[in-house]
Amino acid sequence: MKHNSENYRSNCPINFVLETFGDKWTLLIVRDLMFKSKQSYGEFLHSNEKISTNILADRLQKLEFAGVVIKEVDKKNKSKLLYFLTEKGKDLLPIMLEITAWSSKYDNKSNTPNRFIQALEEDKVGLSLNILEQIP
Amino acid sequence: MKHNSENYRSNCPINFVLETFGDKWTLLIVRDLMFKSKQSYGEFLHSNEKISTNILADRLQKLEFAGVVIKEVDKKNKSKLLYFLTEKGKDLLPIMLEITAWSSKYDNKSNTPNRFIQALEEDKVGLSLNILEQIP
Repeated sequence: MKHNSENYRSNCPINFVLETFGDKWTLLIVRDLMFKSKQSYGEFLHSNEKISTNILADRLQKLEFAGVVIKEVDKKNKSKLLYFLTEKGKDLLPIMLEITAWSSKYDNKSNTPNRFIQALEEDKVGLSLNILEQIP
Repeated sequence: MKHNSENYRSNCPINFVLETFGDKWTLLIVRDLMFKSKQSYGEFLHSNEKISTNILADRLQKLEFAGVVIKEVDKKNKSKLLYFLTEKGKDLLPIMLEITAWSSKYDNKSNTPNRFIQALEEDKVGLSLNILEQIP
């Protein structure tokens, strides 16, 4: 089954993203993979938002189905799985950056580092390239 | 009570947006206000995704609390309420455009018009100004 909007509520592009990421957890996993170099089940579990094991397993499976992440056996530890963003997953970066910009503007408790906000305002392309280089 | 991340799961900017819009419906209302000139309860109900009356009422209330929409009595019909995006709501446009770009790239059933995709690729600033001008 292909990941497209054939069986979705509509073929609207906003709806497509909501059908894929429209919950309170899925994008946190994408965030961890994209900005925090996290790759394993255990690492995702330890993020501040305290995702539960059953939600994490469910969302990782959905992200795999959507072609946003792939999993591979860790070469250093054959009993461990590592998750990677695909190109499709890395292409979520502009959405994640615009989300960060909006939140930093409107949440006076935001923990976005000032130098990140500054880079976002002054050199979004350079910041993006820098982040993409560091994604495992 | 102010809309900030004080009582949220974390102060992460991605989490802030998920706590505000992290479900399958809320951003569809923002879409209708932003791109489709819809402003009333009845108009939101008639979108393709068939939102139910109770979910619509709940999400409009949440959007009001977040300061993303305001409601006013329709001057032409005093028994009718109209919803408007605030500046904070209009500032969601870059997120909505990046969502549209990603979906149009990866959903082969997407209904995004070709001329919209072209404008998005060639002149995002011009497209944004044009959209902002047309929001009621």
